[in-house]
Amino acid sequence: MITVRGAFQTKFGELWEQSLEDLIVEAGEGAIKDAGLPKNKIDLVIVANMLAEQNHLGALAVQLLGLDQVPALRVEAACASGGVAVSQAVTALKAGAAENVLVIGAEKMTDKSNGQIALALMGAASEVERQAGLTFVGLYGLMARAYFDRFKITKNDLAYVAIKNHRHASRNPKAQYPFPVEMETVLKSSCVASPLHLFDCAPITDGAAAVVVSNQFGEVELVSSQIATDSVSLTERESLTELKATKIAGKKAYAQAEVGPVDIDLAEVHDCFSIAEIMAVEDLGFCQKGEGAETIKNGDFDHNGRLPVNLSGGLKACGHPVGATGVKQIAEIVDQLRGRAGARQVKNIRIGLTHNVGGSGGTAVVNILRKL
Amino acid sequence: MITVRGAFQTKFGELWEQSLEDLIVEAGEGAIKDAGLPKNKIDLVIVANMLAEQNHLGALAVQLLGLDQVPALRVEAACASGGVAVSQAVTALKAGAAENVLVIGAEKMTDKSNGQIALALMGAASEVERQAGLTFVGLYGLMARAYFDRFKITKNDLAYVAIKNHRHASRNPKAQYPFPVEMETVLKSSCVASPLHLFDCAPITDGAAAVVVSNQFGEVELVSSQIATDSVSLTERESLTELKATKIAGKKAYAQAEVGPVDIDLAEVHDCFSIAEIMAVEDLGFCQKGEGAETIKNGDFDHNGRLPVNLSGGLKACGHPVGATGVKQIAEIVDQLRGRAGARQVKNIRIGLTHNVGGSGGTAVVNILRKL
Repeated sequence: MITVRGAFQTKFGELWEQSLEDLIVEAGEGAIKDAGLPKNKIDLVIVANMLAEQNHLGALAVQLLGLDQVPALRVEAACASGGVAVSQAVTALKAGAAENVLVIGAEKMTDKSNGQIALALMGAASEVERQAGLTFVGLYGLMARAYFDRFKITKNDLAYVAIKNHRHASRNPKAQYPFPVEMETVLKSSCVASPLHLFDCAPITDGAAAVVVSNQFGEVELVSSQIATDSVSLTERESLTELKATKIAGKKAYAQAEVGPVDIDLAEVHDCFSIAEIMAVEDLGFCQKGEGAETIKNGDFDHNGRLPVNLSGGLKACGHPVGATGVKQIAEIVDQLRGRAGARQVKNIRIGLTHNVGGSGGTAVVNILRKL
Repeated sequence: MITVRGAFQTKFGELWEQSLEDLIVEAGEGAIKDAGLPKNKIDLVIVANMLAEQNHLGALAVQLLGLDQVPALRVEAACASGGVAVSQAVTALKAGAAENVLVIGAEKMTDKSNGQIALALMGAASEVERQAGLTFVGLYGLMARAYFDRFKITKNDLAYVAIKNHRHASRNPKAQYPFPVEMETVLKSSCVASPLHLFDCAPITDGAAAVVVSNQFGEVELVSSQIATDSVSLTERESLTELKATKIAGKKAYAQAEVGPVDIDLAEVHDCFSIAEIMAVEDLGFCQKGEGAETIKNGDFDHNGRLPVNLSGGLKACGHPVGATGVKQIAEIVDQLRGRAGARQVKNIRIGLTHNVGGSGGTAVVNILRKL
């Protein structure tokens, strides 16, 4: 049995006082403490990070945390780095290569200029897309435009994603933007890449999260962890209104966990842009294709809805320190399943799902967790 | 049983005509073809790369190679990225997460300016070392100076590393510098970071290598694969005349393979600087501590010696495209064990070892391979 024994998330936001090293230490020590383990029980460290100029973060984390020369590595799969890192921890446990794996996702984004961030994010896209002058939000703008054409939704419909996730974040003290927003605020915000406005976009965030994944008994079982890929270039995709990688990873994760979408009690999905959450809830089977926006608007995915989605505030309002996001999603679900989610706690929950996407859908990771 | 079914190495050198994507495709297709597998049998892709601004290389490799939406990720552990990637492939096979893992190490270094490379390589070191103004070669210069003081060797003794590895490279058509060098050439080359001269240093190289690691029967078994870490900062090390990570990874790898240093028939070790090969042959138990330079000089590690080391030419003369190096070491040993090493083939060999180091010794990976 694979369990998540400890979980920790730093504050997400513009953390001018903390370096990447500080964030790694805070999250790593937080998760080890939460797991109730002595440091010498950690026998593998996996760091998820996308953008740092500092390489060799695995060995550096071992040194900073005072662990004992254990194997360590960094994994990267663009914004899905965190989810992939958790998946690799599961693999190591199943292989018998470790007993307690510390997974740390960390990113320090605000130290970089806007130009550096724009270039780095497009580093997850393809050469042809960069040469065409596309920005990262532009890629999702193209998907939103295709979705608008096919399913006849409008910017108003998109706005409900930000409204819901900000409302959720207002209950999360770790969130970058812990306050609600009104429809007018969303619609009147600057247009970034039509039809996406500023409030359709996840922010630039500093932050870290860590979990201890273990082969020992714990309160929360990590029942399935699946990765799928798709072409990095949008031009080579069959459809622009779904992410095939999400569908494949989801299908495999449901099969491995022997559950279906109807069994999921709560989820953290990858809402890097509002259109991404709409596609995610459809691709994961939480509603029919084309009905994502309507279902979000109806409140099905609210805190008190049938399947709360992004109770943390999601990438949009909790923040999106890219390498940390997939790990933070796990930490959020673990906190909920252990009944430690404070003001945003939902009741009577047993099974949670996380969904983490790299780039414009080139990678997707789906993890399913169960309360024991 | 874990085997290496296919192996391929591109030409190493200044490859102005090939992009990183080209190198990934050439190496990946080469290894798949060598394995004799249809592409749809590859069910996991791991890419090792340290320096590319292009992120998301796992998914990109899947797209470029026309593989079928299989899981993919990039791993990074500075110059040990390749060795760590092979180790992760072994873990995935043992976990039953895959049956045939394509591991590609690729690096395109010559597109970068010298300043970019210097900064990126120091990205593998610690903050305190960067703030002190140390360069990457400076770190190894300090280790060489400490070694000189303790074991009373001279620059002449160091030079035999380059002389041996260039002599070996002269038999390797894939090598960046396939020609022998004289003592005088080495000693008269520019001093880079005293006592290390230009010919004590591995070059800047473009290149890629790939292997297919499999749970099916093959000609070469990958018997053990072990990673260890040490403090990234030299200041926190107990000794500057050995790499503790090498000693730990080696000890674990020997134990796992149930062999000792005396059983190793040939090895590829991490000679990023001449002093590194001297420490490596000692730390791996190929000779006594303090006798590395003398043993190299005596010819023990020559093509016709008792334990040929770096028959490829090593990092020094075959070249060091950082993320590719650890994978190329495996490919070289596999070629030797299969009797396909051309002019540099050695006879009557059964067990080979690879040793890959990240940074100044923050990570070390040791793999042991056996002819079946």
